[in-house]
Amino acid sequence: MLQEFNRRNFIKTTALTGAALTLTNSIKAFSATKKDKVRIGIIGAGFRSHEHMGNFLQRDDVAITAIADPQQRSVDEALAVFKKYNRPEPVVYKNGNEDYKNLLKRDDVDAVMICSPWEWHSVQAIDAMNAGKICGVEVCGAVKLQECWDVVNTAEKTKVPLMMMENVCYRRDVMAVLNMTRKGMFGELLHGQGGYEHDLRGVLFNDGKTAYNSGVEFGKNAYSEAQWRTEHNLKRNGELYPTHGLGPVAVMMDINRGNRMTRLSSIASKAKGLHKYIVEHPKGGTNHPNAKLNFKCGDIVNTQIQCANGETILLTHDVSSPRPYNLGFRVQGTEGLWQDYGWGDNNQGFIYMEKLM
Amino acid sequence: MLQEFNRRNFIKTTALTGAALTLTNSIKAFSATKKDKVRIGIIGAGFRSHEHMGNFLQRDDVAITAIADPQQRSVDEALAVFKKYNRPEPVVYKNGNEDYKNLLKRDDVDAVMICSPWEWHSVQAIDAMNAGKICGVEVCGAVKLQECWDVVNTAEKTKVPLMMMENVCYRRDVMAVLNMTRKGMFGELLHGQGGYEHDLRGVLFNDGKTAYNSGVEFGKNAYSEAQWRTEHNLKRNGELYPTHGLGPVAVMMDINRGNRMTRLSSIASKAKGLHKYIVEHPKGGTNHPNAKLNFKCGDIVNTQIQCANGETILLTHDVSSPRPYNLGFRVQGTEGLWQDYGWGDNNQGFIYMEKLM
Repeated sequence: MLQEFNRRNFIKTTALTGAALTLTNSIKAFSATKKDKVRIGIIGAGFRSHEHMGNFLQRDDVAITAIADPQQRSVDEALAVFKKYNRPEPVVYKNGNEDYKNLLKRDDVDAVMICSPWEWHSVQAIDAMNAGKICGVEVCGAVKLQECWDVVNTAEKTKVPLMMMENVCYRRDVMAVLNMTRKGMFGELLHGQGGYEHDLRGVLFNDGKTAYNSGVEFGKNAYSEAQWRTEHNLKRNGELYPTHGLGPVAVMMDINRGNRMTRLSSIASKAKGLHKYIVEHPKGGTNHPNAKLNFKCGDIVNTQIQCANGETILLTHDVSSPRPYNLGFRVQGTEGLWQDYGWGDNNQGFIYMEKLM
Repeated sequence: MLQEFNRRNFIKTTALTGAALTLTNSIKAFSATKKDKVRIGIIGAGFRSHEHMGNFLQRDDVAITAIADPQQRSVDEALAVFKKYNRPEPVVYKNGNEDYKNLLKRDDVDAVMICSPWEWHSVQAIDAMNAGKICGVEVCGAVKLQECWDVVNTAEKTKVPLMMMENVCYRRDVMAVLNMTRKGMFGELLHGQGGYEHDLRGVLFNDGKTAYNSGVEFGKNAYSEAQWRTEHNLKRNGELYPTHGLGPVAVMMDINRGNRMTRLSSIASKAKGLHKYIVEHPKGGTNHPNAKLNFKCGDIVNTQIQCANGETILLTHDVSSPRPYNLGFRVQGTEGLWQDYGWGDNNQGFIYMEKLM
């Protein structure tokens, strides 16, 4: 892809400072003339975007000039974030799903952060690159294989930088282990694991008013993510959300930087969790219409991957069952390994290095 | 297989007492007349058998009447175990690899415990069943798929009980979790994991005199397991030792008791560990003849399994790298999960049960 803006450089230059600085730096590099202020447009103004807004609006060298979201409630809640940080209100594009295209026409938008539903990520990213706007794209970035190629091909054609904002790559323990792998402290890498093991039942369903843990509705009767996300679990069986696990491991294994993934095999367990949640919820029950649905996505999906340089990777998708949060990282080489069994705190895993023991 | 002697009954009746009592009970059930003393023959008298001998010889209702092993050193060390427990010496069959057949002809052998190299397990088990001797067989029990069928067919033809002695099924935490699964405390089971994650480098190579951590020889220049076991890592790439992980999970998931494994996919990482061990060992080095060998078995082998009732199982084989011992168990259902990250102590893992939290 683009030599100047690869992920390694992002990591090198931005280390601990997260999404805001990452976008800011790449914009400075991309622009012919140095700007004192980077002007950002937000596409998709739901809860996820509010975290990014908070990061951006705390910086003097960033302005959010425009936002786009077809839902009034999302827009209102987004504007409250601007108020919280005493920043000028952005221009708002809220006239339907396609109004983001008008945001992309603005001269005072250097870059966009795409935080819309999954099925819009590649569409909006491609439009943004074609409009010359640098792109940050939320997880997952694309749904179908062809969408991935469309994004790559557009980036190569337009030369506009795009970054998939996989936040787990910047978890402190993950960055520490990345540093250790670069120093060869695990020896030659053999195997990596990661996953998305996160009980999302209270996110995938709500009561249409409160976003989390409030009911068994999804789609048009729901609010926030449950409006669109749950549909994926209903209709697709597979690894719906690979990059929380794959992102950090792929960086460590130099995927697309001298290594690549060559083959995969994926299997799914039966799907029981979401139906059970609906049936057992006080606002659900066996007679609730959603109790009649057949959710396709298996509760546990494991994916094996082989890499050209001989490493293996294992991913686990596990979002429909009661469990503590854990992304299940493991990085193993010829001289040691890291295993993670918590949510990133220092005492939630172990590191073993033969030559240092 | 055999209704009367299935593993469930073994577990029910023998619970905590391990191999000695297991064999003893099944012999009592199998015999037409009740015997006061069970008479056992040992086939393969190396280190592994000495543990079984110790268990047997501490019981008044068990006698070991004969042992068979072609190596004088193994025989001598086995006889020392008899001396330690002040028990009469057994008859010894040591005239080559086939002399165990003479042990099988004895009337004073009710049952045999097979502790020979892997490639002999199914051969000797089939001979034993055909001779009417109840069989306990060490891990792994068989190497090729056809051997498994040969064992099953012989058991069904002869009606002689055979049990694969997978010791990990009797680890205290594993039995506790089995009990919890039977009580439905994890809900409906969805997924299980297990493995053999055990740094065997110091077992696969030695100096021909001391069994463990003493050199880089194997085959005819080595002693104990390294004489025969290492050859498997040299010539075969795959899950060489599945049952430590699979045994406990298979019991919990009722495999062959109303459920069965239907499909699998297995991938292996590159193989680096054993070569590296030879090269870096003080008695090895780049010029050692074994440094020129190409070990086929990948350092990390992951195997995905689908079950007829919709569960998935994941196995990991990891024996050639530095790491703490861990069989990596995980048992997950619709209401909770168990994850193990140690060697079975109570504080080395976690249990999460939604309805009890």
